[in-house]
Amino acid sequence: MRGLFITIEGPDGSGKSTIVKELTKKLDEAQITYITTREPGGIDIAEQIRAIILSPKNTTMDVRTEALLYAASRRQHLVEKILPALEKGIHVICERFVESSLAYQGYGRGIGIDKVWMINQFAIDDTLPDITIFLDVNPEIGLARINANRKNLDRLDLEGIEFHKRVYEGYNIVKEMFRDRIIVVDANRTIDEVVEDVYQIIYKKIKG
Amino acid sequence: MRGLFITIEGPDGSGKSTIVKELTKKLDEAQITYITTREPGGIDIAEQIRAIILSPKNTTMDVRTEALLYAASRRQHLVEKILPALEKGIHVICERFVESSLAYQGYGRGIGIDKVWMINQFAIDDTLPDITIFLDVNPEIGLARINANRKNLDRLDLEGIEFHKRVYEGYNIVKEMFRDRIIVVDANRTIDEVVEDVYQIIYKKIKG
Repeated sequence: MRGLFITIEGPDGSGKSTIVKELTKKLDEAQITYITTREPGGIDIAEQIRAIILSPKNTTMDVRTEALLYAASRRQHLVEKILPALEKGIHVICERFVESSLAYQGYGRGIGIDKVWMINQFAIDDTLPDITIFLDVNPEIGLARINANRKNLDRLDLEGIEFHKRVYEGYNIVKEMFRDRIIVVDANRTIDEVVEDVYQIIYKKIKG
Repeated sequence: MRGLFITIEGPDGSGKSTIVKELTKKLDEAQITYITTREPGGIDIAEQIRAIILSPKNTTMDVRTEALLYAASRRQHLVEKILPALEKGIHVICERFVESSLAYQGYGRGIGIDKVWMINQFAIDDTLPDITIFLDVNPEIGLARINANRKNLDRLDLEGIEFHKRVYEGYNIVKEMFRDRIIVVDANRTIDEVVEDVYQIIYKKIKG
């Protein structure tokens, strides 16, 4: 049987990495076979692409160039890491996928969600997640968490609150677009509460 | 007045670089204001992207990743070099543009011309060439010229004759798609003959 493809989405500071890390302890206890990943996921070509996107010296990066690079990195990570695992029956839990590009590049950068969705359809070639968990956090809370926790800010972390608010609005539109597979979890709560909710959703989906 | 955007297309070994070089002598004599360029065109971000595409170590590169990277490189070169020149009234003569991706990735790699055209429309955002000159060379002659002239073959030069024949077939389809702006020049002839034809076409277009 093919593995389930589960993505975790949400704005910066919604706790994606922390929650995935805590989640793995519960999945291990339940003896579920899975991998966790996030783009570029250690895939050499995808890492090379990501280095261009995130380099603080690439200040002249056009927004459409950026969107195409994210799509290219996503494609390679999907083909080299996600699809082979799913085909072996391993469940894949991936931090960020197409929704991130739609919210950040499509809406946040103002390219248009429809246009960014088009190039991402080319990149994913019909591989959509089975479920997507959206960690819903107030943008002010999210940004405060980032500033408190991270030492080395990259080019995207350096964006202001206005951009982060637009991304949040973008996610709200995307939530409606894909409401058949997106499950919203209130991520303004404590880590333990959020992890428990996310685990229950995933466990039910896997055990059918 | 806005400059004219002129692209030179054709399979490997059709003589694009040689012809553009000879052409500049005639354009200089006629005191025409122009620049010549080719992707990635010395644009730092586009060069970084191109390095990933052409690196012989990137053997696991997926064909769709490659197509997205070409589109990203094209976008940055367009925004940083071509559009600023055109807006200053400078004519731009560019070796290769969207038709190359349609013939190589769309048809040669088998992704589909329509799909690769879609992501390229995203990249160029309505900036199409005013005219495109297609240097039409028999694929065997083209490949023989490459093998005779080049010392350091990159990942794409190392493809076999079958791939080069498919690219040629792809160009034939693309010529029909854009027949309103593509002018076909027989490039099986001597350099001097081809250059003279290309020059006359460009001169007439510029002088109206």
